Amino acid sequence: MQFTINCRLVYQVIGSGSFLFNVAVARNSFQRVISEDIEITGGESVEEGLQSGQRLHRVIASNGRLELTYNAVVSIEAELLEANGLHMAPLHELPSEALVFLYPSRFCQSDLLGRFARREFTNIESGFERLSRICNWIYEYVEYLQGTTNSSTSAFDTATQRAGVCRDFAHLGIALCRALGIPARFVSGYAYGLNPPDFHAYFEAFLGGRWLLADATRLAPPTSFIRIGQGRDAADTSFATIFGNASLTEMRISNELVNPDLTPQYVAGPISNCPP
Amino acid sequence: MQFTINCRLVYQVIGSGSFLFNVAVARNSFQRVISEDIEITGGESVEEGLQSGQRLHRVIASNGRLELTYNAVVSIEAELLEANGLHMAPLHELPSEALVFLYPSRFCQSDLLGRFARREFTNIESGFERLSRICNWIYEYVEYLQGTTNSSTSAFDTATQRAGVCRDFAHLGIALCRALGIPARFVSGYAYGLNPPDFHAYFEAFLGGRWLLADATRLAPPTSFIRIGQGRDAADTSFATIFGNASLTEMRISNELVNPDLTPQYVAGPISNCPP
Amino acid sequence: MQFTINCRLVYQVIGSGSFLFNVAVARNSFQRVISEDIEITGGESVEEGLQSGQRLHRVIASNGRLELTYNAVVSIEAELLEANGLHMAPLHELPSEALVFLYPSRFCQSDLLGRFARREFTNIESGFERLSRICNWIYEYVEYLQGTTNSSTSAFDTATQRAGVCRDFAHLGIALCRALGIPARFVSGYAYGLNPPDFHAYFEAFLGGRWLLADATRLAPPTSFIRIGQGRDAADTSFATIFGNASLTEMRISNELVNPDLTPQYVAGPISNCPP
Amino acid sequence: MQFTINCRLVYQVIGSGSFLFNVAVARNSFQRVISEDIEITGGESVEEGLQSGQRLHRVIASNGRLELTYNAVVSIEAELLEANGLHMAPLHELPSEALVFLYPSRFCQSDLLGRFARREFTNIESGFERLSRICNWIYEYVEYLQGTTNSSTSAFDTATQRAGVCRDFAHLGIALCRALGIPARFVSGYAYGLNPPDFHAYFEAFLGGRWLLADATRLAPPTSFIRIGQGRDAADTSFATIFGNASLTEMRISNELVNPDLTPQYVAGPISNCPP
Repeated sequence: MQFTINCRLVYQVIGSGSFLFNVAVARNSFQRVISEDIEITGGESVEEGLQSGQRLHRVIASNGRLELTYNAVVSIEAELLEANGLHMAPLHELPSEALVFLYPSRFCQSDLLGRFARREFTNIESGFERLSRICNWIYEYVEYLQGTTNSSTSAFDTATQRAGVCRDFAHLGIALCRALGIPARFVSGYAYGLNPPDFHAYFEAFLGGRWLLADATRLAPPTSFIRIGQGRDAADTSFATIFGNASLTEMRISNELVNPDLTPQYVAGPISNCPP
Repeated sequence: MQFTINCRLVYQVIGSGSFLFNVAVARNSFQRVISEDIEITGGESVEEGLQSGQRLHRVIASNGRLELTYNAVVSIEAELLEANGLHMAPLHELPSEALVFLYPSRFCQSDLLGRFARREFTNIESGFERLSRICNWIYEYVEYLQGTTNSSTSAFDTATQRAGVCRDFAHLGIALCRALGIPARFVSGYAYGLNPPDFHAYFEAFLGGRWLLADATRLAPPTSFIRIGQGRDAADTSFATIFGNASLTEMRISNELVNPDLTPQYVAGPISNCPP
Repeated sequence: MQFTINCRLVYQVIGSGSFLFNVAVARNSFQRVISEDIEITGGESVEEGLQSGQRLHRVIASNGRLELTYNAVVSIEAELLEANGLHMAPLHELPSEALVFLYPSRFCQSDLLGRFARREFTNIESGFERLSRICNWIYEYVEYLQGTTNSSTSAFDTATQRAGVCRDFAHLGIALCRALGIPARFVSGYAYGLNPPDFHAYFEAFLGGRWLLADATRLAPPTSFIRIGQGRDAADTSFATIFGNASLTEMRISNELVNPDLTPQYVAGPISNCPP
Repeated sequence: MQFTINCRLVYQVIGSGSFLFNVAVARNSFQRVISEDIEITGGESVEEGLQSGQRLHRVIASNGRLELTYNAVVSIEAELLEANGLHMAPLHELPSEALVFLYPSRFCQSDLLGRFARREFTNIESGFERLSRICNWIYEYVEYLQGTTNSSTSAFDTATQRAGVCRDFAHLGIALCRALGIPARFVSGYAYGLNPPDFHAYFEAFLGGRWLLADATRLAPPTSFIRIGQGRDAADTSFATIFGNASLTEMRISNELVNPDLTPQYVAGPISNCPP
């Protein structure tokens, strides 16, 4: 499936500022960039860097208007998996690089959610079924509501306050997984059909040696997810990290199907768009 | 300088448990392991793994007593640096691997401490001087007090509650550095002269291309610090991560000078024990 | 039913300190003090005051040992009520003095628990049945566990962390009631059969014009509760409020039946020991 | 000094709702209501009640538009006091009714701010000087900034986040006073010269037997403050407490001098507008 992505960010900069943009789509075997251009006006683009697989664009700007425009055509193909083999690995069998995704992080305080997680999601055998139960619980008990949370809201808050947006849904899912011993990480990306169009946030859980896509919001089919980057939580994958004084004055995202006949579909089973 | 390290941990395990021990000293050009042995009784040692430079010992155990004994003789030599060149790098000049240490983490909510940090530590030019000011502030304003904090206490709490132990001091130092744009990370290790002997926690700040040692507790000279591991905060470097039901029934640490005439000294300037 | 209460508190005072003791049983038509004496050694008893019906003993002490001994024989008789009439009053029909018990307080952040409360306890008609459901939920989902909480733990924490002691159980019950529009208040008192003997904390909910006893811990029959005082939460009813430097070195509570044949019983329906 | 107060609140009500309005000015010897009318359309006014001296208007409304208009002409005269006699009372000399204003409350967690308060405001003899120091500290270290806080922000947050609006400034002042043993309470009211016009929040500290006005925002002269009500914190004195589903669609406050030549002035010394 192919998508045309457009992303436009405009900032008003006061004094001088350093920007770290995280908007370009990742490249891997499930996600092929057919064409792409990034244009920055009003600032100096320093370099494109890589951080844990995500592509960072660093920009220096001072007094005035800074514009970033990113356009890409991307071809993606998620892999449908069998639920059977996707067991939760015991701690000693986890690959080292998955371990950090078991630890609590800024917005996912899994250390505080242990009893809650074990009480609500106990005695379920299959790893994938457990993941589905977590997503269903969040979907059922947490209200998707703009304006009730902010950039410092965490999974601990959402577990009780029961309202939030996609990033809050992802944080709670991650925290519950980790509390149960399942490595989980935050993914930022583009998704088809969001209304209004926006960046999307979802999560991945590590089961049966694979990073499975998970999204408790049900706002877009995971088969349409295009990865920008992943990390422990939103702290690692902000679309813009800024040091200096700048305010976002415009943000426009669009995401269109190249071939409108091939609409992305929801699938019942586990899927992954990350190489093992 | 050479030290003899002994560490003994005893657990009572109920049911079956997976353990991830993080007690063996790291190996690098500043820290040479002369001899070392680790013994585990009452459990099965699965393998030694590496995670971001720290050595993890994974163990499986069930019903009964699990003992870990670690003995090592270690030779260390910290590098004394000139304060002059240790400037804070602008965001766009930081190496990618240092960036994650700018982001807020579970116990270091630098995102919430920006105004506080800028108000208390503003207008100081040299990177190292700024770091010293942060450590001095913590030493002066935060009381070292056992029993006032626990494993879920964070830098945000300590900034206001003003009491804690070494891990709380490190978390606050890290959060303040990050809030000001200085990458900072948590280090767990052994230190000479702690009373009672214990693991120690301190932090490192990235200035002038080097990870500088920093410790606001003043409980032991940083020239004596022996690194076990480092991470974003205590969540990444616990001496034992356990899944299962186990209680620590005994913990004994000792740390002795091989040559008692060469006592570790405090130094006024910046020092590092991490390769550039 | 008659009980013999003994309470002994010993403090080591450094410098000079002001104490506000809140250990004497309240007097009302349900609770008759047959005999009582309070003895203070090592300090000067200033006066007995009243604050919202609770009896406060103020004491000044300096350098040394302060002992308070309180002995009482108390006769109590709780009133068994009919569940039928105990409806929740609409806001505009509540008496003014009940209104403050609808507002959030230090340890009962009902403002943050609205969605949670409405989601878990919705569509239940009778006021008393709703109260029972809340107590049952807490009993079932929160673990009674010493040492997991401290004096700054709040209902917001307990809703997610799911462990605590009697005061935490009461705070969560109060917060849930208030979030649903039922005035609720914290009560400190003595209860028969606690093991080990201790002060007890429970709560009262205002339904049908009466303050009904509620206790989600099920550690002692509410028919045995002897009130010391009540307030918005534990902040108002501490057994000792201290300004100065003093540490509690001994605390002994005992509570015995005068006639051991008349053991207090659990009752299924609503009860109250507070005059309308 | 006389002021003309106008307050207009418009709500869109969905379903049926109960409202508790707290907008009418209090009546006491410092504050005389010359004329006053309150008009409610779209709802049924149930009664005017009193709660700790504040006048509550209860209203029932359903589906549709609810308007409250309150107009008053008020004459006020604050009392200028001598700083000399305004000592902090020892705990045992405080009147019982002042004690509750020493306890921590929902938004003023004085229990968590003890070390901070004692470290920043120590060794200052006079009660009033201490109060001034607290207000000056807040004014200097906390930024007055709309949009950085919300209705669940507390003094504990503001102590570290260092930004907020009048209610946050008042909460922090109250928490610091209580942590130091000075009873302090939250006051809601009208103030002259706010831009844009709005309700105002400030606080009172109990020193030398009087409730002294305190306002760390310096947005309006305390000589112009007209009291609506007071309580432990904002939880007690909301201008509207609502049970049901209603959204505020319009709010207009105006506050004009009857005689524009007599502008309210800032005064350096202690003042009070509350009878002893």
